[in-house]
Amino acid sequence: MTDVTGLKVGVLGGTGPQGKGLALRWAKAGIKVIIGSRSVERAVAAAAELGDGVTGMDNQGTAATADLVLVAVPWEGHGELLTSLRDELAGKIVIDCVNPLGFDKQGPFALPVEDGSAAQQAAKLLPRSRVTAAFHHVSAVRLAELSTPELHTDVLVLGDDREATDLVRALADAVPGMRGVYGGRLRNAHQVEALTANLIAINRRYGAHAGIRITDV
Amino acid sequence: MTDVTGLKVGVLGGTGPQGKGLALRWAKAGIKVIIGSRSVERAVAAAAELGDGVTGMDNQGTAATADLVLVAVPWEGHGELLTSLRDELAGKIVIDCVNPLGFDKQGPFALPVEDGSAAQQAAKLLPRSRVTAAFHHVSAVRLAELSTPELHTDVLVLGDDREATDLVRALADAVPGMRGVYGGRLRNAHQVEALTANLIAINRRYGAHAGIRITDV
Repeated sequence: MTDVTGLKVGVLGGTGPQGKGLALRWAKAGIKVIIGSRSVERAVAAAAELGDGVTGMDNQGTAATADLVLVAVPWEGHGELLTSLRDELAGKIVIDCVNPLGFDKQGPFALPVEDGSAAQQAAKLLPRSRVTAAFHHVSAVRLAELSTPELHTDVLVLGDDREATDLVRALADAVPGMRGVYGGRLRNAHQVEALTANLIAINRRYGAHAGIRITDV
Repeated sequence: MTDVTGLKVGVLGGTGPQGKGLALRWAKAGIKVIIGSRSVERAVAAAAELGDGVTGMDNQGTAATADLVLVAVPWEGHGELLTSLRDELAGKIVIDCVNPLGFDKQGPFALPVEDGSAAQQAAKLLPRSRVTAAFHHVSAVRLAELSTPELHTDVLVLGDDREATDLVRALADAVPGMRGVYGGRLRNAHQVEALTANLIAINRRYGAHAGIRITDV
């Protein structure tokens, strides 16, 4: 199994619920985490709140300092942010967990994405990075809830670079109860991102914080 | 819980692996099943092979006789078949489990669908039917394998008609180990169909017959 302790993981958009929740779980697992945000003050405040050695920087400093980054920003700012960090992220593994979704009176739905998916947009904007897609379906509520010590959920990890997807799987495995499962090439990322709309519909119907598990693996 | 015994379930394309596998499990659960096929001879032969009171008819007879139908034909013939059965299927619940997928040297991928998804195409072509989408992710290999008596998998059931999705969920619940989970409106069917490409990629990587479970529900 790939060793992920000693890695510096940067979380772009780490003050949002998904990024902050994953930062918390990784920090508890002994991984060094940097929270990135547009605002260094908010990043430092979130890091202090998390404890466990988490530090805070602006997104640019986070991208430059981290060994690999999770992109956890809102879809609206996704393309612009990644374009601005092309040099800082060169040569690094990038994990995209962004779900391009819309909401109307009938609930959540998947937005059409010109490049196919957020992850494919990232790959296009970051030609010198090793882009993967993962952590779309992990409930931010459950991540934040330390009274749930084991998350019992699978993380689909997509990408075209085997070494990169293996390392990202190991980052999922590092969180108690979580398991990284290879989930296909990046061209199959759209449906994984879009499935989050179904999980939100499930949450509304059942009053749950749904995730997925892959059976027979 | 909705009672599904006494229902006559027609399986269009019931000589293919997915349709035949579900027919087998439903028949074992005491549900009356009609196998439909373009060829009445092949339908009758498949029905005889399954036993348990399963009968075989051509697709038109199946659609006319059944109380509700599962559409399990290849994507290529989907639109044409449903157009031809518009009258027979009027007023009935239709379950679409078709996955529009392509394959090339890099493996499986989701095909673009003009109407958004196979299920939405069905809803457009069958305006007098109650169209739902379900049973996309159940392994045909596991369905056929009676040495696996319990399938331990969830079935996402999508649709805009609550009574129809409840009945289809009950049809999933009728199979030991299987569970029907409401999975959202029909406009969110594309990603559920397309996710089958990811499950096939998982099967190839892990040598598995993968399915999904929804956690926290």
